[in-house]
Amino acid sequence: MDDNYTSRAEKILRRIEALAAISEDPQAVTRTFGTPAFLQGSALVKSWMDAAGLSTRVDSVGNVRGRLVSRNSAAKTFVMASHIDTVVNAGKYDGPLGVLMGLDLLEQLVLGQTELPFHVELIAFSDEEGVRYHTTYLGSKVVAGSFDPGLLTKTDAQGISITQAIETMGGTPQLLAAEAIPADQWLGYFETHIEQGPVLWENQIPVALVTAIAGQQRVELTWQGMAGHAGTVPMHMRQDALAGAAEFVLAAEQFGVTYKHELVATVGKLDVRHAASNVIPGEVVCSLDLRSADAARLASAYAELEQKARSIAQKRNLTLHWNLIQYTAPVACAPEMNTLLGQAIRDSGYEVVKLVSGAGHDAVPISAVSPATMLFIRCFKGISHNPLENVELADVAAAVQVAERFLQLLFSHYQTTPSE
Amino acid sequence: MDDNYTSRAEKILRRIEALAAISEDPQAVTRTFGTPAFLQGSALVKSWMDAAGLSTRVDSVGNVRGRLVSRNSAAKTFVMASHIDTVVNAGKYDGPLGVLMGLDLLEQLVLGQTELPFHVELIAFSDEEGVRYHTTYLGSKVVAGSFDPGLLTKTDAQGISITQAIETMGGTPQLLAAEAIPADQWLGYFETHIEQGPVLWENQIPVALVTAIAGQQRVELTWQGMAGHAGTVPMHMRQDALAGAAEFVLAAEQFGVTYKHELVATVGKLDVRHAASNVIPGEVVCSLDLRSADAARLASAYAELEQKARSIAQKRNLTLHWNLIQYTAPVACAPEMNTLLGQAIRDSGYEVVKLVSGAGHDAVPISAVSPATMLFIRCFKGISHNPLENVELADVAAAVQVAERFLQLLFSHYQTTPSE
Repeated sequence: MDDNYTSRAEKILRRIEALAAISEDPQAVTRTFGTPAFLQGSALVKSWMDAAGLSTRVDSVGNVRGRLVSRNSAAKTFVMASHIDTVVNAGKYDGPLGVLMGLDLLEQLVLGQTELPFHVELIAFSDEEGVRYHTTYLGSKVVAGSFDPGLLTKTDAQGISITQAIETMGGTPQLLAAEAIPADQWLGYFETHIEQGPVLWENQIPVALVTAIAGQQRVELTWQGMAGHAGTVPMHMRQDALAGAAEFVLAAEQFGVTYKHELVATVGKLDVRHAASNVIPGEVVCSLDLRSADAARLASAYAELEQKARSIAQKRNLTLHWNLIQYTAPVACAPEMNTLLGQAIRDSGYEVVKLVSGAGHDAVPISAVSPATMLFIRCFKGISHNPLENVELADVAAAVQVAERFLQLLFSHYQTTPSE
Repeated sequence: MDDNYTSRAEKILRRIEALAAISEDPQAVTRTFGTPAFLQGSALVKSWMDAAGLSTRVDSVGNVRGRLVSRNSAAKTFVMASHIDTVVNAGKYDGPLGVLMGLDLLEQLVLGQTELPFHVELIAFSDEEGVRYHTTYLGSKVVAGSFDPGLLTKTDAQGISITQAIETMGGTPQLLAAEAIPADQWLGYFETHIEQGPVLWENQIPVALVTAIAGQQRVELTWQGMAGHAGTVPMHMRQDALAGAAEFVLAAEQFGVTYKHELVATVGKLDVRHAASNVIPGEVVCSLDLRSADAARLASAYAELEQKARSIAQKRNLTLHWNLIQYTAPVACAPEMNTLLGQAIRDSGYEVVKLVSGAGHDAVPISAVSPATMLFIRCFKGISHNPLENVELADVAAAVQVAERFLQLLFSHYQTTPSE
């Protein structure tokens, strides 16, 4: 590895440590949207952007934004971003790594006095995790122009509304719509993020190209049978709700294994109502989380698993309530961006591994208005949302190398391709 | 049906209603060991025994006992019994039906001035359900001489010890051992009880001969895998604790179906630790309740299911903790008694249906010191421990007829067979 990339990666990791030291909880990393620790963290990020020579501001939803302007005033804007809010008891890298990678790239552009064919904006989104208001992407939705003002009255556990939280941060809810980058001004969006999964770790590969962000169907299934005495009801007279749910758990798993390159299927919750070791379960409620990058596959999997659940219920003389809780459409990364990012990975000497992101990212709302792509970085054992979250210095250096090459390719692409 | 049996059954059901009206909870039937409602109920039962002309007393553990003495002072004692405590929000029949059936039979013996070849004792046991002290058979264990004095310091939810509860009822803990019927004084034990299961109901049969009371193994299984993100961990890299437990639920069920005439197997509890719909379950704790009348079958089923669980865990790369919580040995009813009871059923014009009791009964501790048998009465849909618990008048009349014939057969058997 080039010493230049390694030393830049070291600087990125030092900044990650400095940001991680700012927390609501002295024992763990926790910086949720709008808290004093969050504001302290965003002020630190803004101070780094200022020092780098960017035109900085904190927008009305608390996003920290730093801009480098092209001499071509008609140019569009290329955004590099990730988020600086965290889950409770978080790791250090989920979010901040992408922001501080972007800061490093902009620092180099300033240092190199690079002629910019388009504007470049670095954004540290203020809320991606949705911990405080149970609604994700507050920051990136504002920038994408898709923030729903109906959410402003939504309150947190202490009864504080989003309006109040924004005002406490010094923002103005009435200005949120004006914070968006207009749809016709987007050149592209690039986000670097830890994988939050084990594929790169298991395959010993530092980075991957993200081709899509999976869509998700979340279902709540209620299985109703007949509770009974575990000693006195013969096996053939039972209507055991847990046995039905168990059959479904295995069917969902088998379905996921069968279509393993296309989807994942998970039963994460399963609750036996009025459970006792000597009572045949009369009612069980379980979840299904189904994700795929392919909208048609997601829809057909959903239909097939519902059919499977209904046939299990019918066979076992159970009543099934199948209740769709959430649907998120899959998002494909922009092919043109991905071609350039793949080229950058190859030029940097790495195999081009293509991954679908099973987790959501700020790229999801942004992709509605801009071509978007993402670079994944290997993380320790795929662990995330956990203090054990970790990345290797060499992998960050590799990502710096790839991202810098990607920017170079973008520059030459847009110097020869008119922006309209 | 003979009008005599029907009118006696009507009287039994009226007494059951009168007893059920005495409750800790005005909305439901609840009479747990030693409560004011319990004492009021036992006083009512004692008053009926007194009126019937029995020699009555309440023993030191609160059992109500009424005796008819044979002129043969060397004779042994034949006990008819069941219990008058209930679960919380109970039915009316579980327990009281057997006591009040016995009372009817003794009333007839008195009315008929029957010459008794042996002593007959009716007992209303004070605690079979074990609700208050989480230990069953307090009443019948005292009579069987197997009460463990170490339990006297055990406390209920209010911190009241069994010693205190006994003293509040007017009993003397030091006298408990003396309340036992000595092992060499038992001629036999007979208990009538609702089936608490659906077999008679489904097969439209009023009564059944109980051949055995199932033994029970209760196991707690802990499945440990690896929690992970439901979107980012590919199916083949998962260690899903719930999928392992689900496979075991179905294996236990299939095992029960395969050996359906010999055992029942139930997973009644299943708890996903730190469950969330978007998290692959990392730890699951579930129960196994395994019952069989055949001790060898119970032992082999236990070993086979443990082996099955371990092989599921191994295949799925899970860690399994298999923890035996409780073992109760099966109890066989006495063949000699059962022959006579079967004869009585046949003589009364009914098919002799043989059932294994999957639930425990006072006959379990008594069988350690006495030949014991039980007669089951059909109950509505097999429902028990529930306000919906019900029995038909005609079935009670059938049981009266059978039990009376059984007593006649016993008398002639023991008049021609010396008791030593």
